[in-house]
Amino acid sequence: MGSTALGGAAPARAGLAPKIVRLLANHPQFRITVMTADRKAGEQFGSVFPHLITQDLPNLVAIKDADFSDVDAVFCCLPHGTTQEIIKGLPKQLKIVDLSADFRLRDINEYAEWYGHAHRAPELQEEAVYGLTEVLRDEIRNARLVANPGCYPTSIQLPLVPLIKAKLIKLSNIIIDAKSGVTGAGRGAKEANLYTEIAEGIHAYGIKGHRHVPEVEQGLSEAAESKVTISFTPNLICMKRGMQSTMFVEMAPGVTVSDLYQHLKSTYEGEEFVKLLNGSNVPHTRHVVGSNYCFMNVFEDRIPGRAIIISVIDNLVKGASGQAVQNLNLMMGLPENMGLQYQPLFP
Amino acid sequence: MGSTALGGAAPARAGLAPKIVRLLANHPQFRITVMTADRKAGEQFGSVFPHLITQDLPNLVAIKDADFSDVDAVFCCLPHGTTQEIIKGLPKQLKIVDLSADFRLRDINEYAEWYGHAHRAPELQEEAVYGLTEVLRDEIRNARLVANPGCYPTSIQLPLVPLIKAKLIKLSNIIIDAKSGVTGAGRGAKEANLYTEIAEGIHAYGIKGHRHVPEVEQGLSEAAESKVTISFTPNLICMKRGMQSTMFVEMAPGVTVSDLYQHLKSTYEGEEFVKLLNGSNVPHTRHVVGSNYCFMNVFEDRIPGRAIIISVIDNLVKGASGQAVQNLNLMMGLPENMGLQYQPLFP
Amino acid sequence: MGSTALGGAAPARAGLAPKIVRLLANHPQFRITVMTADRKAGEQFGSVFPHLITQDLPNLVAIKDADFSDVDAVFCCLPHGTTQEIIKGLPKQLKIVDLSADFRLRDINEYAEWYGHAHRAPELQEEAVYGLTEVLRDEIRNARLVANPGCYPTSIQLPLVPLIKAKLIKLSNIIIDAKSGVTGAGRGAKEANLYTEIAEGIHAYGIKGHRHVPEVEQGLSEAAESKVTISFTPNLICMKRGMQSTMFVEMAPGVTVSDLYQHLKSTYEGEEFVKLLNGSNVPHTRHVVGSNYCFMNVFEDRIPGRAIIISVIDNLVKGASGQAVQNLNLMMGLPENMGLQYQPLFP
Amino acid sequence: MGSTALGGAAPARAGLAPKIVRLLANHPQFRITVMTADRKAGEQFGSVFPHLITQDLPNLVAIKDADFSDVDAVFCCLPHGTTQEIIKGLPKQLKIVDLSADFRLRDINEYAEWYGHAHRAPELQEEAVYGLTEVLRDEIRNARLVANPGCYPTSIQLPLVPLIKAKLIKLSNIIIDAKSGVTGAGRGAKEANLYTEIAEGIHAYGIKGHRHVPEVEQGLSEAAESKVTISFTPNLICMKRGMQSTMFVEMAPGVTVSDLYQHLKSTYEGEEFVKLLNGSNVPHTRHVVGSNYCFMNVFEDRIPGRAIIISVIDNLVKGASGQAVQNLNLMMGLPENMGLQYQPLFP
Repeated sequence: MGSTALGGAAPARAGLAPKIVRLLANHPQFRITVMTADRKAGEQFGSVFPHLITQDLPNLVAIKDADFSDVDAVFCCLPHGTTQEIIKGLPKQLKIVDLSADFRLRDINEYAEWYGHAHRAPELQEEAVYGLTEVLRDEIRNARLVANPGCYPTSIQLPLVPLIKAKLIKLSNIIIDAKSGVTGAGRGAKEANLYTEIAEGIHAYGIKGHRHVPEVEQGLSEAAESKVTISFTPNLICMKRGMQSTMFVEMAPGVTVSDLYQHLKSTYEGEEFVKLLNGSNVPHTRHVVGSNYCFMNVFEDRIPGRAIIISVIDNLVKGASGQAVQNLNLMMGLPENMGLQYQPLFP
Repeated sequence: MGSTALGGAAPARAGLAPKIVRLLANHPQFRITVMTADRKAGEQFGSVFPHLITQDLPNLVAIKDADFSDVDAVFCCLPHGTTQEIIKGLPKQLKIVDLSADFRLRDINEYAEWYGHAHRAPELQEEAVYGLTEVLRDEIRNARLVANPGCYPTSIQLPLVPLIKAKLIKLSNIIIDAKSGVTGAGRGAKEANLYTEIAEGIHAYGIKGHRHVPEVEQGLSEAAESKVTISFTPNLICMKRGMQSTMFVEMAPGVTVSDLYQHLKSTYEGEEFVKLLNGSNVPHTRHVVGSNYCFMNVFEDRIPGRAIIISVIDNLVKGASGQAVQNLNLMMGLPENMGLQYQPLFP
Repeated sequence: MGSTALGGAAPARAGLAPKIVRLLANHPQFRITVMTADRKAGEQFGSVFPHLITQDLPNLVAIKDADFSDVDAVFCCLPHGTTQEIIKGLPKQLKIVDLSADFRLRDINEYAEWYGHAHRAPELQEEAVYGLTEVLRDEIRNARLVANPGCYPTSIQLPLVPLIKAKLIKLSNIIIDAKSGVTGAGRGAKEANLYTEIAEGIHAYGIKGHRHVPEVEQGLSEAAESKVTISFTPNLICMKRGMQSTMFVEMAPGVTVSDLYQHLKSTYEGEEFVKLLNGSNVPHTRHVVGSNYCFMNVFEDRIPGRAIIISVIDNLVKGASGQAVQNLNLMMGLPENMGLQYQPLFP
Repeated sequence: MGSTALGGAAPARAGLAPKIVRLLANHPQFRITVMTADRKAGEQFGSVFPHLITQDLPNLVAIKDADFSDVDAVFCCLPHGTTQEIIKGLPKQLKIVDLSADFRLRDINEYAEWYGHAHRAPELQEEAVYGLTEVLRDEIRNARLVANPGCYPTSIQLPLVPLIKAKLIKLSNIIIDAKSGVTGAGRGAKEANLYTEIAEGIHAYGIKGHRHVPEVEQGLSEAAESKVTISFTPNLICMKRGMQSTMFVEMAPGVTVSDLYQHLKSTYEGEEFVKLLNGSNVPHTRHVVGSNYCFMNVFEDRIPGRAIIISVIDNLVKGASGQAVQNLNLMMGLPENMGLQYQPLFP
């Protein structure tokens, strides 16, 4: 059952398509029948991504030449902006998981403000379901078009949404210092992403203005049922994969760190991919790299009434392609973890 | 079918046991029922290796307390020396893949010379089959005790054994410059393996005296049916996983680089895990990391009559745990690739 | 003029002594005449630290055998605890810069609480001057014993002390998320510091309980003339050198980010080693590594009334050995920057 | 005495100009009075290279607008090809150290073959002296135009030229496996040099066809007084700086490894920057990074009659800017080590 098309494979070597190919290589129910890439049309996927030369894959075709007649579902890995038009043009019976930012923001004015152009498919925006699997599982199961979350938003919302819903933390002064590997910072051959510019160092970027801010604030505001404004400082770390979000929060009056811990524990008790660590164990990014897991924990702060929450994910798996496969599994009525049992690659 | 015991898990955090656990997590036919670790007896595996806390595993037991009644096969991940005694004491019906060096050298005098003590189980040594899967598949299928090859020997013998057997290269002046990630260099908390000593640098080590030399020379000599002496210089690279062996060889009279290429192509044509790259594509370690693949290619040298052969593996997978699972699959009559479809984790 | 002794060189390969040797190699006025190291007595420094084999240095001697008759000043690089006794035993005419934590905390009860034993030289503690050069220059100039600051405290106090003194930021809710290279995390051959445990990852450590907390709070409280409690979360980054401190602060009523910027600008205008970056330039750790510089800048937060301050240093230079040489220059009446003009090594 | 101009600073962020600025920052006799950069004319050097913002430097000017009236010497850091024309146009009284490949090959036909265009300044080529300082010191002292050697050629010729001159090694079958950090592999924003493509891996490149081959063969052939053809395989390592060359050689009849060692020892006994290590100590790249040192040593091979020679340098210092300053010191009658006492930055 289930064959999939994968769009926009080749525009970027560090793109998301090869990560999905990697996951689908072990998926017992999905088979890749169409792969599109306008600029690389006619080429073999393995010549663009040599680590996947062992895979037997269809040649890349231009999107206009793609034959969707034998396709049930599509992963769309195109840059934001272009995605809206392309999805509009796809056959209506296809299930779609879109990995771009195009359908994540419910408010198309907010989209226009952060992305610099009017939304090109507002009617699809209304239909789209936000794909934070553990939080919106039922909606995703019935969706035709899922907007797969960004990596920072995934790592931040998984711990904060339940705590906010339960009114355990205050909405003011939520301060987030997040750290990402370079694969999350973009994909083009930019000077700023050269080995010589990245190795053995750290720097903050996009202070105040990172495009994941409205996505996080949308999720937290919905949980709070009132507008939440966050402080968000992302940092680029000299590592390929991995993301850590450190969240400094004020607890509601009378609430303790133990209350936060217990609430997260009961929220995620039966989840396969979200794990609250035991005791005071600190989540390490390297313990989830290569897997679809999110590890998290809660710590007391020296300042009374405050708590520190740390979550880690692989930004390319739970923060992108892994969650995408998890969502499509749900949409196709398959076990949610199918094809996703890759264990972390450590060391 | 098939449950396995895993011995010697915990003596070293960078040890091989967690890599086998990672592979078996996705193996449809093997189940881990016993895990031994004398010094960590009573502990949970996930508390020693936090990246595997999501796995439901038996608690660690001392080897003397292990119950093998429900066990079909054993992966033995103990340090050399101790392994010989322990395997002697195991029930005879168990299939065993030993990842140590204890049964790799057929000549027990050579073992004594390189490892500093007399062999403690010479009768088992006679029974042991050397587990270089693609080269000795039939023998492995019928073996009870397999000596899983070292990482350097795997990466060197896969290309050189067929070329030597076919008399395409000379036996003199085989010069090997090999490069390994740190996981191959040892596992203890040694100063030499600290991040500060390893990051952003390279150095040679064990020039002339690396313990993998007799293992390689044994394999090449058997292929040649005469004694082969190699030049072998291993280097430690600032990376965790990955191994590249560069082999500088003289071709037999009249032989061309194209002859070497064609012979390797026909030798490995049907193999799932050994791939000769197309054209002049250069094998990169990062394109196999996390997988059981060996990529190789052959290049012309500037010096007439010489060729350069480069092979790459993940030293912990094809160079250790992956080949071990591949071998046990064979020994148990299962498809050789079962549980080994992990694709490379790149980037 | 001026010969120096260097104590405690060899207990740790990643220790501070070699960093001071590196700096003194180019110092026109200091000459190393005595080097002590009890466990390595009799050895050559270059055999312990091969990157310094080109230096003509005295052999290591046990501290009890050291001849201080030709010595003017001492850098003391011993572990905390032992230092107090040893400095007590040194000739009184020696100028001393102590790089341990032993004399940093003015309150010996606080010392006892954080270090687990009663202070062994309370009378010296009273005499010691805290060596944060740009803040306490005049006191250092006249000091005999300087307690060289820790790395985190240097990177945090340089921006925060002037802002607190000028009452530009509130004393509550000072939240610090700091990131350090591995050289700052310790020096022994611990499993946690192996390349395989550190490379390609990040994790927090010592949440709430890092020993640099009381040192920072002491400095901020003195600036504020009232008790300050901070939130402090250090993270270990996969890099050798470098430290970034990100400080999330609330501004005093009516104060703007531009006020913070202008005050730091005027405070550090004439300083050689502390630089406020222009405009919205973000400090990168890699732009100061190998040098004695501290780069910093101030940014607006999305939450009104808050600001984000980022500072970067090389934890081993401005955070340790460089500031130590800077302090001894002052104590000896030399130009403060002598021997410290090493420019950053980038890339 | 001595002011310098620095040409071609800004075309590439990873370019050589900033490394020379770093060295000259501590040079007591050279002052930078002119800096050219056509595309960045009008900008400040520190805005292009933020790690050098603390330096007081002249603004960048287009080369046609440069005023050389107050200039004694020029470091030319332009890409090959363009350099020939530009140096032709410079005032004749200027001393010039050219860091490009433009004047390294004495045979302009060979230049044309490897660089794809006819040499544009053959008369200057005749005048140019090859700047391998320790080998050609007297010629450099009297030169007006010095062609600064490439990094691989420096690391290879320093050990091999004296051994060949003394007829201690055979000219056939000189096999070189060299490893370079990424700064040596190019400077542009190429996909192949991204962090995600380089980190945690190794690969060979330019097998047979690397442009440093003719430069090495020229030097070895001159030492041999007959044509030498080498086997040369460069590898790109996941590190920023550092270069290791491993040379596998056959010794002349009757020659021992000890003979090689003794000859190198006496050759480089009085040299400040070339060091033969003691005993069997292995050169590590990380022990020279940031310095102008070349460390080397000689090892016995398992194959009788063969030896293994390993040398390490910082490819950007002794392999480029450091040797350039060393050469200009000589040309200006200054102590050769002036401004070059930067010690290695380790760890």
